Amino acid sequence: MFNWKDDRNLTLLVDFYELTMANGYLKNGIGDKIAYFDMFFRNVPDGGGFSIVAGLEQLIEYIKGLKFTDEDIDFLRNKKIFDEEFLMYLKNFKFTCDVWAIPEGTPVFPYEPLLVVRGPIIQAQFIETMVLLTINHQSLIATKANRIVRAAQGKPVFEFGSRRAQGYDGAILGARAAYIGGCAATANTIAEKMFGIPAVGTMAHSWIQMFDNELEAFRAWARTYPDNCLLLVDTYNVLKSGVPNAIKVFKEELLPKGYRPKGIRIDSGDIKYLSQKAREMLDEAGFTDCNIVASNSLDEFIIRDVLQQGAKIDSFGVGERLITAKSEPVFGGVYKLVAIEEENKIIPKIKISENPEKITNPGFKQIYRLYDNKTNKAIADLITFANEEIDESKPLKLFDPIFTWKTKTIENFRARKLLIKVIENGSATYNYPSVGEIKSYCQEELKTLWDEVLRFENPHKYYVDLSLKLWKTKQKLLKQFAD
Amino acid sequence: MFNWKDDRNLTLLVDFYELTMANGYLKNGIGDKIAYFDMFFRNVPDGGGFSIVAGLEQLIEYIKGLKFTDEDIDFLRNKKIFDEEFLMYLKNFKFTCDVWAIPEGTPVFPYEPLLVVRGPIIQAQFIETMVLLTINHQSLIATKANRIVRAAQGKPVFEFGSRRAQGYDGAILGARAAYIGGCAATANTIAEKMFGIPAVGTMAHSWIQMFDNELEAFRAWARTYPDNCLLLVDTYNVLKSGVPNAIKVFKEELLPKGYRPKGIRIDSGDIKYLSQKAREMLDEAGFTDCNIVASNSLDEFIIRDVLQQGAKIDSFGVGERLITAKSEPVFGGVYKLVAIEEENKIIPKIKISENPEKITNPGFKQIYRLYDNKTNKAIADLITFANEEIDESKPLKLFDPIFTWKTKTIENFRARKLLIKVIENGSATYNYPSVGEIKSYCQEELKTLWDEVLRFENPHKYYVDLSLKLWKTKQKLLKQFAD
Repeated sequence: MFNWKDDRNLTLLVDFYELTMANGYLKNGIGDKIAYFDMFFRNVPDGGGFSIVAGLEQLIEYIKGLKFTDEDIDFLRNKKIFDEEFLMYLKNFKFTCDVWAIPEGTPVFPYEPLLVVRGPIIQAQFIETMVLLTINHQSLIATKANRIVRAAQGKPVFEFGSRRAQGYDGAILGARAAYIGGCAATANTIAEKMFGIPAVGTMAHSWIQMFDNELEAFRAWARTYPDNCLLLVDTYNVLKSGVPNAIKVFKEELLPKGYRPKGIRIDSGDIKYLSQKAREMLDEAGFTDCNIVASNSLDEFIIRDVLQQGAKIDSFGVGERLITAKSEPVFGGVYKLVAIEEENKIIPKIKISENPEKITNPGFKQIYRLYDNKTNKAIADLITFANEEIDESKPLKLFDPIFTWKTKTIENFRARKLLIKVIENGSATYNYPSVGEIKSYCQEELKTLWDEVLRFENPHKYYVDLSLKLWKTKQKLLKQFAD
Repeated sequence: MFNWKDDRNLTLLVDFYELTMANGYLKNGIGDKIAYFDMFFRNVPDGGGFSIVAGLEQLIEYIKGLKFTDEDIDFLRNKKIFDEEFLMYLKNFKFTCDVWAIPEGTPVFPYEPLLVVRGPIIQAQFIETMVLLTINHQSLIATKANRIVRAAQGKPVFEFGSRRAQGYDGAILGARAAYIGGCAATANTIAEKMFGIPAVGTMAHSWIQMFDNELEAFRAWARTYPDNCLLLVDTYNVLKSGVPNAIKVFKEELLPKGYRPKGIRIDSGDIKYLSQKAREMLDEAGFTDCNIVASNSLDEFIIRDVLQQGAKIDSFGVGERLITAKSEPVFGGVYKLVAIEEENKIIPKIKISENPEKITNPGFKQIYRLYDNKTNKAIADLITFANEEIDESKPLKLFDPIFTWKTKTIENFRARKLLIKVIENGSATYNYPSVGEIKSYCQEELKTLWDEVLRFENPHKYYVDLSLKLWKTKQKLLKQFAD
């Protein structure tokens, strides 16, 4: 029923260097050489303890539809730098790579491959821009939304940010990612049509201004929407005008029998103070069941602080600071070559850098999440070569990849592979879960993380270790460059 | 030739409350009441002295295509809160408003209406979300790009941010806005196809990794692209490996007669130090004409600082901090009801707030930009009622709308109306300039601003005054609420 589709031809939404390299690979006779790329990130935004990966459905749909139209080819030909052979290659372009990915909604950690692509270098390289753009954007918003949702301590958070989003997809796919991250609903109507995310809303200040006065505007609303009588009370003065007028209308029994007013929304001023006073006024008037919704430049810190100060707020509308991840609006995922194949053998590759944190983990890899069977909590993630298996029946020794003397031996655990195959030889092999399913899965997975990791300031660093085999290969490659 | 088109049906990219209000207006018999809305912003991002408005072409195209499909109507019917009469209204929806706008690329200031919409309340209200989303996003990026371009002091700035943009439009329309703001080119190929913005690019680190060693990779590039031999030198070690190998290849004369190598790109490390050392090495080897391009998390502050420290950089590739306006990723434009019509008379409306900066300027308005005929510099902007004319032949007295004792009388000036009609009774009356024309216009307009306003920290506050008539009306409305 809900079926997001994007019919735009976004094939040329690609960094131009992917095309110059592709042409060069072909010309140098290595276009079909098999390469492995990892997409991974290095830092959790806002100094958080984990990120939530999202965007896979959109990425797979893009890959499924990937083709070059005649118009695209003509455009490229006009650039006068590509060989005709390459343009013919693009004309007959067929994506034949394999892709592995961590399912959407999974909590993930720095340096873990969120996506692995294996295939002819031209193809595997070409999708870099869209891999990063798609996964970076939605992971950013899902991660930010979850911070805000955690701060709200179970009170619903509504995504209200479309008007301040960075472009139309920013609003639409941002609403999707926010829902995956835990938001209860969105103001963006098309997100319900496309994904089934509940769209909600009542009135803006202009509704009040269109009537002779606030009281008349409230009355008109109550008559029009007896089952959704939530009144915006801050057009003129919250405590002197808005709340008294709302109570007056609630008491006038304009609603048919059996209907109760929903409550009020406060969109400016000090929401801690105003919500406490408004709560008192509503309670005194007998409307203890009426909710107070707050909106106005909220984020996880303001929500945490006003709740700690005893604000009487039942739900939060969060706009610009969520939909742009304002405090840190970049999810810095990168896409790096980690191996090539020579005579059917995988040759791990490394990228050195003067900044040690920019050094890559070489090889074709898998990630195991290790859960304690007694507590059901995640103990650590272990990055291994793809062909390494973990024997759950034996104790497993983990060690820190930098401070290698720090070790830990675990027992009575289970190991779950995080990377699953989603595209095989160019064909999608993945059944998309609905966004509701992704959201539920995310919530379940978050329960496996210790509180220490969930904390949003100075969280405990979750262990992401390397297998001994992978660690040794990395050291060997590093030494080659040091020599 | 270049023709951006967006065939998606974005009608339901609308905050749900626009629909509940619209249904309510119709039900309360005021759906056809004429209303005036202003779009304006309150703060220049990053504490700058001005913003650059952008996005008008996309907004007009959206309005031109605005209609509700049967699928949209069915979806809304299923929400079970809209009247059938309203759904029929939407089925026959025809946009009949008038729209005035400030042309794209114009430097603009807080509280100036960037867009004015006049028409039946249902329609004028309905487009709020898309007006804000479209203009906020592109104005944000154009403004940020211009800051970065000014910091680069005439050295070209390339927009390299697609992979970190917030969604596909964030990348595509962000590239458009960045070009309007002054960028010389983009890495985003589709932006050239759609808008004619030059797309540029050479190689990523993976190109180097695909060959046996850096030298071989450079040689292969030189042979493939003799006319675009710009080598990425930081895959292993800039000064020990990258630059020496580049020089070696430049000297091998792999390029056909008449071709000169373009230069090098540095993408990590300290670009001030590395560029100075690399410059020395290139110069010593006789490649004084080879350029040095720098990229790696740049913004206006880093660019200003490294240039001040004598970095030898000829052009800059700027990614995530431009395409997301990282330092302040929200352009806080709002859309407020400012007047209604009663019996063909315009009744100004005001929105009060406990935060004085949130109080609106009432009425249907025009903005005049006043230029000094001698210096050709902009002296001030004057917001007036739409029917006020300015007599350039007489001295004009301006006064500060808050500190009213601060006055200034100007003579020998010309007054230019900033708001022009772009949609009349629902039909577009505006010929879009190309993005190149918008960019040139923007550069010309910036020349009319004093250096004091252009400064990017603590700029001089440009004067935006109200006409006496408008100021008096505002005071009267404020007083009504105080009483």
